[in-house]
Amino acid sequence: MKDKTFLMIPGPTPVPESVMLEIAKHPIGHRSGEFSKILHNVYENLKYVFRTKNDVFVYTSSGTGAMCAALENLVNEGDHVLSLVLGNFGNRWAKIAESRGAIVEKIEVATGEVIDPEVLRAKLAEDEEKKIKIVTLTHSETSTGAANDVKTLCSIIREHGALSVVDGVTSVCAMECNPDEWGIDVLVSGSQKGFMIPPGLAFLVANERAWKVYEECKHPSFYWDWAAYKKSVQADSTPFTPAVNLFAGLDKALEMIKAEGIENMNARHRRHAMALRAAIRAIGLELVVKDDKNASHSITSIYPPEGISVPDIRKVIKEDFDVLVANGQNALKDKIFRMGTLGFVCDRDVISAVGALEATLYKLGYKFELGKGVGTVIKELAREI
Amino acid sequence: MKDKTFLMIPGPTPVPESVMLEIAKHPIGHRSGEFSKILHNVYENLKYVFRTKNDVFVYTSSGTGAMCAALENLVNEGDHVLSLVLGNFGNRWAKIAESRGAIVEKIEVATGEVIDPEVLRAKLAEDEEKKIKIVTLTHSETSTGAANDVKTLCSIIREHGALSVVDGVTSVCAMECNPDEWGIDVLVSGSQKGFMIPPGLAFLVANERAWKVYEECKHPSFYWDWAAYKKSVQADSTPFTPAVNLFAGLDKALEMIKAEGIENMNARHRRHAMALRAAIRAIGLELVVKDDKNASHSITSIYPPEGISVPDIRKVIKEDFDVLVANGQNALKDKIFRMGTLGFVCDRDVISAVGALEATLYKLGYKFELGKGVGTVIKELAREI
Repeated sequence: MKDKTFLMIPGPTPVPESVMLEIAKHPIGHRSGEFSKILHNVYENLKYVFRTKNDVFVYTSSGTGAMCAALENLVNEGDHVLSLVLGNFGNRWAKIAESRGAIVEKIEVATGEVIDPEVLRAKLAEDEEKKIKIVTLTHSETSTGAANDVKTLCSIIREHGALSVVDGVTSVCAMECNPDEWGIDVLVSGSQKGFMIPPGLAFLVANERAWKVYEECKHPSFYWDWAAYKKSVQADSTPFTPAVNLFAGLDKALEMIKAEGIENMNARHRRHAMALRAAIRAIGLELVVKDDKNASHSITSIYPPEGISVPDIRKVIKEDFDVLVANGQNALKDKIFRMGTLGFVCDRDVISAVGALEATLYKLGYKFELGKGVGTVIKELAREI
Repeated sequence: MKDKTFLMIPGPTPVPESVMLEIAKHPIGHRSGEFSKILHNVYENLKYVFRTKNDVFVYTSSGTGAMCAALENLVNEGDHVLSLVLGNFGNRWAKIAESRGAIVEKIEVATGEVIDPEVLRAKLAEDEEKKIKIVTLTHSETSTGAANDVKTLCSIIREHGALSVVDGVTSVCAMECNPDEWGIDVLVSGSQKGFMIPPGLAFLVANERAWKVYEECKHPSFYWDWAAYKKSVQADSTPFTPAVNLFAGLDKALEMIKAEGIENMNARHRRHAMALRAAIRAIGLELVVKDDKNASHSITSIYPPEGISVPDIRKVIKEDFDVLVANGQNALKDKIFRMGTLGFVCDRDVISAVGALEATLYKLGYKFELGKGVGTVIKELAREI
């Protein structure tokens, strides 16, 4: 059916009607008083969502842009960077650091696993000369659905004296992420994720420790330059012409997030992810991330049952039930599929996604107790947490 | 009056209803077949609009992003860059080159003037060792409304053996801009200009000579990396999550441009700019760019009459007539105002803008023959060209 697609991918995610109506308005002048008011609200409310006292910068770019905005304001040629890699997006940090001429080391884990804090501690202990300037890590790894214990990892990084740079693209809004309290030095995120607006905006927040490293950066990138954004935030402005329509949508979406409450929004994502995981197990499918405590609350990766291919699952669930789920990336392509429960997702959506998945597997000949998944979701969602 | 603002600034520019309706649709998956089809059309039609056989890259960013995408794929530390500066945006090229560690020299001209080809020729002749690797220039300088003779300048740059990098942000669509024929090595533009869509996308086209210089770039920026975009264009894809809604709008807008014809679109902009210039003279106001042949066809900069301030003109024309015109930038702030006739602008719009300007000046006590400006526009627009 046309025009009925439900996005259960890790992004773009569903957008509320009221947000789309703001985006649909004709653009206004980006130097007008009217737009300045929108920026004022946006900058204030972003501090609330990011749980920070620091300014949050908004870039007109993909989420990857904000990742560049982090490292291209910090890294000089020859700097030592340690990248903690759970998958594709953890690896992206390493690539960006390398593109600036950094000497990059990695701690990599198997698919679905997370970084063991003790492994990190031991690795940093080897760095007796304190050469490692920056440690990059991922909160919720979009390619596998695994989620690091960022709080513990950042405290170890801080102890060593390095700077922590965290990808919160699919975690901010969905999972507790507390940069000021946890000592995350730089945190980035993207609009088409928990923020419930279409792609095109990305976010960055840096603390005082990060600013000190910035001061020593020889060639901060012109487009991402923190100093220009800092000055603009304080003047309710932007350094360059921003995507004004997306900002209007963001303004509306942030109001909705405030009305729900960021803690409630985090809790909702946790409930949905855990209910989905329980349902997947009940259907008899294997989760990529075994342990609930290592699971992202925004993306769930699943192995197909034996004899049924990922492309077939994606095809049937899309064509028959208008649900879009994601394939695996790179080496995981056709090996796993990924379901997002990120952003503007209600209980009914989770129930219907599991229903559609059951119907798809049934059609593809998988043998299981029909209704077991949906029943499990309903029970899980009904539990008091 | 609310909701009635008419944008006569250099960008954002008015957006057709049919384009806004595409943008207003819920986002679709950026790795879906449906989006791939949109990309296929967009990439094909951009070649038509840019009059090039080369691939046109689309960045999710402001126009300045595409300027970074040009120099951050070409410049190494210590490279010599010559920047031809007509104003603020010509200067931006110099700043970006400096941010990459280039040694930048400038040829600067007074407000409203353009680069004399012979001055450029003489300057390059001094560079006997051929140290100058890149010459940056602006086609239509948005801060003054002056327009360079890009064709002649690029042929001189080519003769010298340097690479020409051209800002076509407010010229592509509005003025003839022919990279393949004129030997422009890198050309950039932005969406919220002649392309008739809101801000958030930017364009870049590079030829084979530019690619050779790219191959020697030590640290191409990860987000702007040409190789990643080239690969994606050829697969009807994008390297990172793009602003899908803006792409849907762009697809529609490009169809409209094709239906009008790029030559007709250029001619329309020329007619409008020349009619507006004639009207300004008829009202007795002074144009910043004296000579029609040096004038941009998208932006017209005007000095206020003696005793009447730019802020007053901008305030009255906005509050009483719902027309937004731009102030001058930096040193030109409050010294000039700028009217855009860029993108989705019809003859009636030019007539009404001049009418609103006359009404504004009348209200502010300026003595002139009322109706003279509108009369002139009507006559100019009625002329066969």
